[in-house]
Amino acid sequence: MVSIILSNPQMGENIGAAARAMQNFGLSDLRLVNPRDGWPNERADAMAAGALDRIDIKVFNSLKDAIQDLHFVFATTARQRDMVKPCFTPKSAAQEYYHRKNTGQNIGLAFGAERTGMLNDEISLCQASISIPTNPEFSSLNLGQSVLLMSYAFLQSSLTDKMLDNFKKDDSQPAQMDAVHIFLERLIKDLEDRKFFRAPDLKPTMLRNIQNIFTRADITDQELRTLHGVLSALRGNKKAD
Amino acid sequence: MVSIILSNPQMGENIGAAARAMQNFGLSDLRLVNPRDGWPNERADAMAAGALDRIDIKVFNSLKDAIQDLHFVFATTARQRDMVKPCFTPKSAAQEYYHRKNTGQNIGLAFGAERTGMLNDEISLCQASISIPTNPEFSSLNLGQSVLLMSYAFLQSSLTDKMLDNFKKDDSQPAQMDAVHIFLERLIKDLEDRKFFRAPDLKPTMLRNIQNIFTRADITDQELRTLHGVLSALRGNKKAD
Repeated sequence: MVSIILSNPQMGENIGAAARAMQNFGLSDLRLVNPRDGWPNERADAMAAGALDRIDIKVFNSLKDAIQDLHFVFATTARQRDMVKPCFTPKSAAQEYYHRKNTGQNIGLAFGAERTGMLNDEISLCQASISIPTNPEFSSLNLGQSVLLMSYAFLQSSLTDKMLDNFKKDDSQPAQMDAVHIFLERLIKDLEDRKFFRAPDLKPTMLRNIQNIFTRADITDQELRTLHGVLSALRGNKKAD
Repeated sequence: MVSIILSNPQMGENIGAAARAMQNFGLSDLRLVNPRDGWPNERADAMAAGALDRIDIKVFNSLKDAIQDLHFVFATTARQRDMVKPCFTPKSAAQEYYHRKNTGQNIGLAFGAERTGMLNDEISLCQASISIPTNPEFSSLNLGQSVLLMSYAFLQSSLTDKMLDNFKKDDSQPAQMDAVHIFLERLIKDLEDRKFFRAPDLKPTMLRNIQNIFTRADITDQELRTLHGVLSALRGNKKAD
């Protein structure tokens, strides 16, 4: 898992927002370097929506101390700095992260103070930098938002099986084709009775149109029952009236 | 560009945060459906960091009104619902968006009210749903954060997936929502005339079923003309006989 490091964070609200963002994507190792208002912090608690209880939080006196057990640390910067470091997008950084994690490395993602971002001295402690590509005319991400986007980007590359379980299929499956065809045959017969297909040369096209509409829609059995009812009602059958 | 639609947003702060999130990724079409505290809203302004001046904001009385000129609308949901719609992750939705955008379609991304999320009736107006995969044990994204992540995910794909440019344009475009709604209104009126909705308590479910069938199918203008003809024929109007 990625460790998140906040260097000299000023506002407790942002620490809370960062914790909440992390937990949404299953991250649970937060390291605070000299939080301005000390730690713990009530304002952090108010913003964290319960995430602080689920996260391991440690406080350090310097960024250097905070990264001692890590193998590779990304510095998050608002724009590419004039330093000779590999520069990543969140997406390419996530790939780098997975590659390194698989070889047993501990990876960190460091964020600077709200007003200044990462200072050059801090960046020099890191192995690489990451920037989130934003609108050059309106680049305004706060600390909590940056942590949210980075956590999301890192976790997207390999969702845990548990998370993917949330995406399992609906109860309502599409109907089998025979049920769809029974409805279509009934509809077409009704239309023939009503002399819908007056121009014989257009009939094949019309049939294809109608078929397309109802075969493309992944119709369920329940919906087919609704459509049968609709048809009965429109035809004025006894059943529906 | 994607249009962002906030349905019944409660807090001005969240509208401001959504606008700020959008502008970071270059989005500028925001549609508000019945904002609880009216519009304009001072709290939105305070949270937007200047983004409101850079965004086109329109207010509507219903979600239906808000999507009239769009061709394809994603409903953002916290988890997969029990409705048969295509379900996307942000990443796969972004690919779908990019493909559709290249064929000239107007795409929307709809978000529900803070407390409830998208209601089933609202989802039934949309063509597909998206969920952000989060930690199943701690899923707590607020409205502004959801808009931020979606805007990021959508814009990332346009930055990197240039190869999608090669997708061929279809001849037949999906109809705009207003044309679909005109057909649905006519169908429902006909069904009411025929006393299709005999059990009043079942009527909302029936309406939703019917709406789902025809909004899911990417119906084209030509197909809508066919369906109008089908309806006329089944009703026994002069035109069709």
